[in-house]
Amino acid sequence: MIYLDNAATTKPFDEVLKTFNEVNTTNFFNPSSSYSSAFNLYKKISEARKMFIKFLHGDEENDNIIFTCGATESNNLAIFGSATNKNMTYLFSSGEHPSVYNCAKELLQRGFDVKFIPLQKNGQIDYEELEKLMTEKVCFVSTMFVSNEMGAVNDLARIRKIIDNKNKNAIFHVDAVQGFGKLALNLKKFGVNLCSISAHKIGGLKGVGALYISSNTNIKNVVFGGNQEFTLRSGTVNAGGILSFLKATEIAFENKDKNYENALKLKNILVENLKKIEKRKIIVVSDDFCSPYVVSLIFENSRGENILRFLDTKGICVSTGSACSSNKVGNRILESMKYSKQQIMGALRVSFGFENSERDIEILVKNIIECLKLLNI
Amino acid sequence: MIYLDNAATTKPFDEVLKTFNEVNTTNFFNPSSSYSSAFNLYKKISEARKMFIKFLHGDEENDNIIFTCGATESNNLAIFGSATNKNMTYLFSSGEHPSVYNCAKELLQRGFDVKFIPLQKNGQIDYEELEKLMTEKVCFVSTMFVSNEMGAVNDLARIRKIIDNKNKNAIFHVDAVQGFGKLALNLKKFGVNLCSISAHKIGGLKGVGALYISSNTNIKNVVFGGNQEFTLRSGTVNAGGILSFLKATEIAFENKDKNYENALKLKNILVENLKKIEKRKIIVVSDDFCSPYVVSLIFENSRGENILRFLDTKGICVSTGSACSSNKVGNRILESMKYSKQQIMGALRVSFGFENSERDIEILVKNIIECLKLLNI
Repeated sequence: MIYLDNAATTKPFDEVLKTFNEVNTTNFFNPSSSYSSAFNLYKKISEARKMFIKFLHGDEENDNIIFTCGATESNNLAIFGSATNKNMTYLFSSGEHPSVYNCAKELLQRGFDVKFIPLQKNGQIDYEELEKLMTEKVCFVSTMFVSNEMGAVNDLARIRKIIDNKNKNAIFHVDAVQGFGKLALNLKKFGVNLCSISAHKIGGLKGVGALYISSNTNIKNVVFGGNQEFTLRSGTVNAGGILSFLKATEIAFENKDKNYENALKLKNILVENLKKIEKRKIIVVSDDFCSPYVVSLIFENSRGENILRFLDTKGICVSTGSACSSNKVGNRILESMKYSKQQIMGALRVSFGFENSERDIEILVKNIIECLKLLNI
Repeated sequence: MIYLDNAATTKPFDEVLKTFNEVNTTNFFNPSSSYSSAFNLYKKISEARKMFIKFLHGDEENDNIIFTCGATESNNLAIFGSATNKNMTYLFSSGEHPSVYNCAKELLQRGFDVKFIPLQKNGQIDYEELEKLMTEKVCFVSTMFVSNEMGAVNDLARIRKIIDNKNKNAIFHVDAVQGFGKLALNLKKFGVNLCSISAHKIGGLKGVGALYISSNTNIKNVVFGGNQEFTLRSGTVNAGGILSFLKATEIAFENKDKNYENALKLKNILVENLKKIEKRKIIVVSDDFCSPYVVSLIFENSRGENILRFLDTKGICVSTGSACSSNKVGNRILESMKYSKQQIMGALRVSFGFENSERDIEILVKNIIECLKLLNI
């Protein structure tokens, strides 16, 4: 099998499973229990918190990390936890993952003043439009770091600057799921208040995520219960999940540059080879400003679905778009980038993992060519 | 180590970890992806859903199971997902776990009409008080199946009957975390609409739970995102967690009667031996109507905290109360059962797991006696 759907989820590292199994055999306690073994586990989790802040380039002494069951929960907590004032304005980029976008739509429903920042043709937010939308009344801005759909990278420093020009107190939330552990991310430098990350996108386990909260940011809890995680996230602390997330993060950061080079090489090979296909009508949506880990393609004369099915029979896993939504009607993001309905039908996403090789891409290209021949394109 | 805090969390079965590792090595896909491997995984999860409904004695064809990250999320979904009408009344037992109780308090805060059902001295709800509180205006009743604090078992059939006398359409929610896989539970027979269960209390993993929803019950989602789980629970589906939860459930049900007998034997040995302690001032809060898995004790002349610390030095893990709350000020449940502040300070909870033996209890008793001697009681 050749797995090229790493933006949807990744295969956990062996070391991650090893850590998870160790915790769940010798350290299976409830970290909120009172005896010493449980307290030692609690301390390990506190240390993990500091490590995550360090990896994110936050302030280890004063910032905080809240562990969650994944980025969807982190995004819900960031958004609903910040939404306290109906007299203020909440801005969201149009390119957001459903776990941000659908929270924004729910805020609208609840009577909040919500506005959406349009995208440029390359998937980044339209900075000039943000300048127009940004006013003193804007108290919250949410833009993702790297798009899960086409890899577009938003310039977080530039966004923070635009925000500061009008309201230095506005909360800047960043969904960094597709960038964390892959691209340079410095939350302090970029002035990020809230940042969502997920374990299973970087070789960690599903069911684990975190929300970074800078020391100058106050949010309220949205889940009610035992008041774990500084009262911000109730529920038994998933120690095995958290400590294995830390392990995945350590491995990802250790190999960050090497992995980036590899992904870039694979992207270049893929794009170069697709260009060579005769009578090609393939648009490479992901330009040079995108993360190399995600390549969004449009096959103008074909349906992405058909190519996906053909590749599937050859043991190659790709995606027609985000797998994060089980309700795949159209593609909101490509639509907002002004691609036609016909073009959107031809969308295909290839996303690289840490373990993909040149050979994987050669086989992919060979099979895409075979598929297009079969489809008479 | 002798682990007697199984109401807080349990050691995962080896088979559970095996299943989890298998899924995460050969079947690590995002079940919402479109290729066949992902779809096959999706089908396995659909089959697991039906199995859970079967174990709960629901209607496999029409009822539903929503997988969550744990009972706290299940309870939040059940309660906030049902809370749509401020003109109706919502009833909660006073003995509920914080993940229900604090949702109830939040509903009050939001302007809902919320009332609490008092407890009897043995921890069960006061059925006569429920009869008084139950009116045609009550649309939602939440009582736990088995108390996590003292093991008290509520008579669900009797509660449903009291509800039906006034409003057959009222939703009956049951937090069954401490009873599922341990005591007989028949949701159809008991007329339960919503039922919360958790993996890590029966040898499964932390970070996994479920909410049963009967076919005649409509609730709305409280988390927003990719609309997984029939739109009721967004977030990447944790296949490894879910399939290992099923494995834990299968093992627990296969050994249910044997395990029950063992827990009952251990409880009897513990209680009999404590009775023998001279000049004893030990109240066994958990009476014969309680689940044998949880034994709540009050040491009238001592602090539970001190006994816990002593036992900890001997490698014995017990609890002074629920570990589900990280904010342990007093004990709401024992207070509502009319124990004095002094008595509550002496509370200690011993909770049995599937692997505990008579020898564990002998060692526990020996050490309790030693501790009381040291404390000059």
